[in-house]
Amino acid sequence: MKTLIVGASGGLGGALARALVGRASQLFLLGRRASVLATLAGAVGGEALPADLGSELEVQAALAETGPLDLLIYAAGAVSKASLRETSRMEIERLEVANSWGLALTLKYARFNPAARVVLLGVYPDLVMVPGLFAYAASKLGAEALLGVARKEFRREGVRFTLVRLPAVATGLWTPLGGAPKQALNPDEAAQRILEGTLVESPPELLEVR
Amino acid sequence: MKTLIVGASGGLGGALARALVGRASQLFLLGRRASVLATLAGAVGGEALPADLGSELEVQAALAETGPLDLLIYAAGAVSKASLRETSRMEIERLEVANSWGLALTLKYARFNPAARVVLLGVYPDLVMVPGLFAYAASKLGAEALLGVARKEFRREGVRFTLVRLPAVATGLWTPLGGAPKQALNPDEAAQRILEGTLVESPPELLEVR
Repeated sequence: MKTLIVGASGGLGGALARALVGRASQLFLLGRRASVLATLAGAVGGEALPADLGSELEVQAALAETGPLDLLIYAAGAVSKASLRETSRMEIERLEVANSWGLALTLKYARFNPAARVVLLGVYPDLVMVPGLFAYAASKLGAEALLGVARKEFRREGVRFTLVRLPAVATGLWTPLGGAPKQALNPDEAAQRILEGTLVESPPELLEVR
Repeated sequence: MKTLIVGASGGLGGALARALVGRASQLFLLGRRASVLATLAGAVGGEALPADLGSELEVQAALAETGPLDLLIYAAGAVSKASLRETSRMEIERLEVANSWGLALTLKYARFNPAARVVLLGVYPDLVMVPGLFAYAASKLGAEALLGVARKEFRREGVRFTLVRLPAVATGLWTPLGGAPKQALNPDEAAQRILEGTLVESPPELLEVR
């Protein structure tokens, strides 16, 4: 099972990589932070592909390294807390790139084996439609719409898409918000549940992790 | 009723401007195409505010001209038809700016009178979640999420938000797609229905125009 994790230098991406040891025949780790990726690649026997999701050329170059994939997990993400009155266009763009455009570019350049799977780590809309999270909500729910269209466009290639709704997971994503909520899932536990729910014969279109 | 139409150089924005003559005490027309705006401003007795929604400085400068608003209609929009495999990052950004970020920047710099209304022209999700429209679907549904958060953030300022779901309207928006569908609404008819449904004592959170 040739696998690519996008956002592998994040907390949940790293947990997914560790959980895939022994299950993935090849493990490609795409992320922004090269040193984190290199350490992780050494630990799990994967291949580090450092790339900035905001650069189409870098995403294209990274995807050219993988060959056809059996599993692609999009675990990249960024969040920041600021009201509409306080947010700059640059900050909106930063979140959009990590949460949505990176997915579009990854799918654009990915090649898939028959019956490949794509997994997007998403959110519960009610949990993100709150004051201060408009750029996060817009980009995460925009990515969900993108996945809905991708599902139709890639049907003839035989690719199956799963949207995973996740509650808060205790990763560095929460650092700019002052830390994860108390009830946040442990990333290793979240990774187990994501893989248990998606690595099945017929992957569901929607997987709700609570 | 001090009114701002964003996207006034588009077909539906122009129809809304004409329909507001006699109802708006002051009519500000923000759009990209200065010559179209100038002609429209002359015809409806409005004030043209040419601005590129992709430029935070231009949006800020335009909004500084209006003073506090009673009604803001976001009618800007862009569409293009291309699959994920064919779309560039630049094209994704162009749609995102017109359909979503422009709304964020407009709200950031708008000032409102008590009981002001904001109207966003949206879509029926099922109609846009189709092959070739991923960037349109992601940006329009992202804007809808943005509006949901804005509704909460601006509650203390007394601003009421209405999301209008529209079917296809026969405007220039459809030109890159080879023309509007046959059953598309006439823009003047659409403008009438939008205003009838939103300029009521208690504007609805959701107005579905069929």
